[in-house]
Amino acid sequence: MSLLTEDAKGVYVIAVTPFKDNGELDLPSTDRMVDFYLEKGASGLTILGMMGEAPKLTADESRTFVRRVLARVAGRVPTVVGVSAPGFAAMGELSASVMGDGASGVMVAPPSTVRTDDQIISYYRMVADTLGPNTPFVLQDFPLSTTVQISPQVILKIVENQSTCVMLKHEDWPGLAKITALRKASGAGSRRISILAGNGGLFLPEELGRGADGAMTGFGYPEMMVDVCKTFAAGDAERARDIFDAYLPLARYEQQPGHGLAIRKHILAKRGAIASAAARKPASALSNADIAEIESLISRQERRLKEIN
Amino acid sequence: MSLLTEDAKGVYVIAVTPFKDNGELDLPSTDRMVDFYLEKGASGLTILGMMGEAPKLTADESRTFVRRVLARVAGRVPTVVGVSAPGFAAMGELSASVMGDGASGVMVAPPSTVRTDDQIISYYRMVADTLGPNTPFVLQDFPLSTTVQISPQVILKIVENQSTCVMLKHEDWPGLAKITALRKASGAGSRRISILAGNGGLFLPEELGRGADGAMTGFGYPEMMVDVCKTFAAGDAERARDIFDAYLPLARYEQQPGHGLAIRKHILAKRGAIASAAARKPASALSNADIAEIESLISRQERRLKEIN
Amino acid sequence: MSLLTEDAKGVYVIAVTPFKDNGELDLPSTDRMVDFYLEKGASGLTILGMMGEAPKLTADESRTFVRRVLARVAGRVPTVVGVSAPGFAAMGELSASVMGDGASGVMVAPPSTVRTDDQIISYYRMVADTLGPNTPFVLQDFPLSTTVQISPQVILKIVENQSTCVMLKHEDWPGLAKITALRKASGAGSRRISILAGNGGLFLPEELGRGADGAMTGFGYPEMMVDVCKTFAAGDAERARDIFDAYLPLARYEQQPGHGLAIRKHILAKRGAIASAAARKPASALSNADIAEIESLISRQERRLKEIN
Amino acid sequence: MSLLTEDAKGVYVIAVTPFKDNGELDLPSTDRMVDFYLEKGASGLTILGMMGEAPKLTADESRTFVRRVLARVAGRVPTVVGVSAPGFAAMGELSASVMGDGASGVMVAPPSTVRTDDQIISYYRMVADTLGPNTPFVLQDFPLSTTVQISPQVILKIVENQSTCVMLKHEDWPGLAKITALRKASGAGSRRISILAGNGGLFLPEELGRGADGAMTGFGYPEMMVDVCKTFAAGDAERARDIFDAYLPLARYEQQPGHGLAIRKHILAKRGAIASAAARKPASALSNADIAEIESLISRQERRLKEIN
Repeated sequence: MSLLTEDAKGVYVIAVTPFKDNGELDLPSTDRMVDFYLEKGASGLTILGMMGEAPKLTADESRTFVRRVLARVAGRVPTVVGVSAPGFAAMGELSASVMGDGASGVMVAPPSTVRTDDQIISYYRMVADTLGPNTPFVLQDFPLSTTVQISPQVILKIVENQSTCVMLKHEDWPGLAKITALRKASGAGSRRISILAGNGGLFLPEELGRGADGAMTGFGYPEMMVDVCKTFAAGDAERARDIFDAYLPLARYEQQPGHGLAIRKHILAKRGAIASAAARKPASALSNADIAEIESLISRQERRLKEIN
Repeated sequence: MSLLTEDAKGVYVIAVTPFKDNGELDLPSTDRMVDFYLEKGASGLTILGMMGEAPKLTADESRTFVRRVLARVAGRVPTVVGVSAPGFAAMGELSASVMGDGASGVMVAPPSTVRTDDQIISYYRMVADTLGPNTPFVLQDFPLSTTVQISPQVILKIVENQSTCVMLKHEDWPGLAKITALRKASGAGSRRISILAGNGGLFLPEELGRGADGAMTGFGYPEMMVDVCKTFAAGDAERARDIFDAYLPLARYEQQPGHGLAIRKHILAKRGAIASAAARKPASALSNADIAEIESLISRQERRLKEIN
Repeated sequence: MSLLTEDAKGVYVIAVTPFKDNGELDLPSTDRMVDFYLEKGASGLTILGMMGEAPKLTADESRTFVRRVLARVAGRVPTVVGVSAPGFAAMGELSASVMGDGASGVMVAPPSTVRTDDQIISYYRMVADTLGPNTPFVLQDFPLSTTVQISPQVILKIVENQSTCVMLKHEDWPGLAKITALRKASGAGSRRISILAGNGGLFLPEELGRGADGAMTGFGYPEMMVDVCKTFAAGDAERARDIFDAYLPLARYEQQPGHGLAIRKHILAKRGAIASAAARKPASALSNADIAEIESLISRQERRLKEIN
Repeated sequence: MSLLTEDAKGVYVIAVTPFKDNGELDLPSTDRMVDFYLEKGASGLTILGMMGEAPKLTADESRTFVRRVLARVAGRVPTVVGVSAPGFAAMGELSASVMGDGASGVMVAPPSTVRTDDQIISYYRMVADTLGPNTPFVLQDFPLSTTVQISPQVILKIVENQSTCVMLKHEDWPGLAKITALRKASGAGSRRISILAGNGGLFLPEELGRGADGAMTGFGYPEMMVDVCKTFAAGDAERARDIFDAYLPLARYEQQPGHGLAIRKHILAKRGAIASAAARKPASALSNADIAEIESLISRQERRLKEIN
């Protein structure tokens, strides 16, 4: 597979990890899910992310799942694998394994223990050394989860120091000013890397307007992000916003902390992308009231989409 | 002024604190803002909340501002005053002062140092003792900000123990299951208190569906919350959602952590509710890109409101 | 190997993980370290704990290290293995593996995401289910690191619910009142479990006085804890304090957050327990000034020990 | 009173705030306490610090207490007042008030919301602007409490930018390497400010060895810190350590998080420095077991002090 580069754009869907009702990895659903995401227009996939229940897999399961995804993708789009780990030995081992299996790059978030600018810069120097010169990596900037605040200057320093840092997963909420600052810097000579936006796409129109190259996040309707990105790229920002607005009520609902994964898996199962909405413990479960709200939001969404088409 | 009771419903707007461009309290704007909120249909006001820049006021300024608001409200609606404080002496002093000035009740969030169920229950026992038997209070449940997780059982215990606890400001994000659990308990004999939803109203339709009595939060267009609550109370949940959806893109934008107050004040100033959007340091400022995004969202919102009316 | 029981007492040393200077696992030093701890009087060993650099090992390395330790211990004392993990699949897999290899029990700290009393109780129910009915476990109560506050009532509830919970690693700093409350409860009919104290032994005399059964922690001079526990058990509390006081200046120095492991490994290497003080990245390194301070503390400690003997 | 300068050295005792048993400010005890600290050799006093229960006082009480202390000190030593506040209006008002009353300087810790290097540097620029050019200030670096990590480079930048920053209250636990880095920088041309160590003096010998000018912290026996500093300054580091070691068991005991203030006030009351050990709610209370442990530690301390004298 070709490696991830600074030119990456479009929508890299953060994939879920499908389980059977009994909690086992569901490999046939893994195939179906890959097909589903690609049919909806994904430009890439990201697996073993925080919403991918990576920490709930055993090491063997992780390997099995990664291989299954890569085999099904079969090089049609790049696949990024989350390899964040508390220690570099495990990170290096996982990274070498998935790159050997055909991944296009890996993604690393900082541990909550790095705080000062220098600590963050040093951490990513160790990350780059651990991954080696042939493994492109994505810097995941997600302070709501990591509690690590990374300033634009620090990102630029990491980009300057580490030539294998080719992408920013932008998840500082929403951090529009950060995108503007980074794009201004790359306009002024700093190496330009890809910026894909996170946060469930809830700020996608504004992020694209500020210079993001697309999105790397999840949503039960990934076609929203694909259509918004394409329409925006085609120059019709108002139309892109119309599409975005139609999906926003459900996207907002899916973004509930601690509950979003259950909602996303419910929608994906309902849409046939996976066989079961089961998540591994600890996991939240949907109540009847939750499900009724989701149904209502979906039917309103469908109605609204018809109105604008 | 009549005191806050368990029957409170509707929209209690979290008011901003208006400053002049030079940073001084703007008392004429305070009057105008009160009028604005009441014209838009507020059932009550809440002042000196977290978004009210309370910690940036001196003790004298707090007193001056509270008196000005109460004088302008003149008993037309209840006014709740935030009195959260690291110590009970200051909390008791502020509470006695504002109740003496005519406030209807006070609001208290727990400090981040209380963690276990017992610590939270004990804390609110001390709160109730400090406030005294004649001061109704609002329990502010806002874990994203306080880091204190309060389970439904703990809320019910506080309600049982403290007869002066008459309202929950529900800001567990979004914590729909918590509303359901509390309403089920009050159906089964627990004292029923008012539940008003927070979080900028971003989950208002669902919260009303679960049993909330209204909202206590801020937004540059408080009429959204008023109209949604009224329409929902009138039995037209779909119409309430139509209204909600029309405002959602801007409401979402205004809910940016660390940036929302600047956006809200910009909108309020633009709408003539206050003279200046100035906030006291430390404060974020809007860039030209921010302002252009707000303008675009407002014009789209106006168009959409016309379509549904 | 016999299983860990509620009657465990004495000193369970939290073992380090020895590495060579090049960062590889040092298996010969692992043998030497085991011998060293047992010679110094350890009643048990605990491996793969937070100070054991467990997160820096690959899954294979963890397995290799555990097997090497268990082989060397050869059933002379019980060995506890830390199996805390973000997900139950990995926890269950590691636990089954080490119990199969001959461990006597496992230790589990709660993730920082569980906060309310009910969440903590539920979490340990899932832990016990995951580990199964034949795996005794240690509840690690270490709020300074986990940010999870566990009240005595919650611990008692876990003890009541989960018969496989046989020990508390007490590391609420120093939480003397918690030991008193737990011992009062076990005097009043609650199942009595073993309580071993942590925090580098810095409150060991007081913890023993409150009812702790010993210590489970690390220190470059584990004989301090052994001698204090033995002397205390023999009824000579003042003599136990004399011993404790002699070691306290160095024990205090070793307890520096973020720096303690480097100090401990330096001392162990100096004493011949391991070949190299190397720690895996990210790791702090000792400066010349640090080393001079350690040398000075050791020589003063030796002098003081002579005075009291 | 003369202003605080970069040449400050010795022991600035963090004073408690004395209350009567009924919770009122105890002004006669305030006088007695000031006398006690000065008799024990304090080079300065610091009031309204975190351990001074500042947040539990009303604004009026703070003013009354500060004036009483300043009147009793009567210019014999410098007095520093803690003015940390969530907003600059309150900070500026309190600072102007206490400097007008005769304080020698103020102390400011950063709020937990500032995280990146730039945010910290900007925050202290706003602090210096708020305090004005005639108010020397102490930078309080206490990450365990504030969660803000300040690197040596950031401290040096603040020192460079803000000429009124004259002292570092060093409470990064224990952060010996930070003192070394700062002293190396001041040897190389950076403006040299005073560094006084915190953390209950638990690392005082090492901190002095690294270049600290003394201590700014509290302990029921402030003469320990005074004697250690004087003996160290006189060139007898081993003798300074002997004194330190004699007090260490009790100093360690007093440093229990959340419990230390109750212990300190108990000792001060026992020694006659204040009339009552009462602390304002929320406060921990000593059990009989706690008191017995303190008594035992004090009698051992007295015995040991005799042995070394």
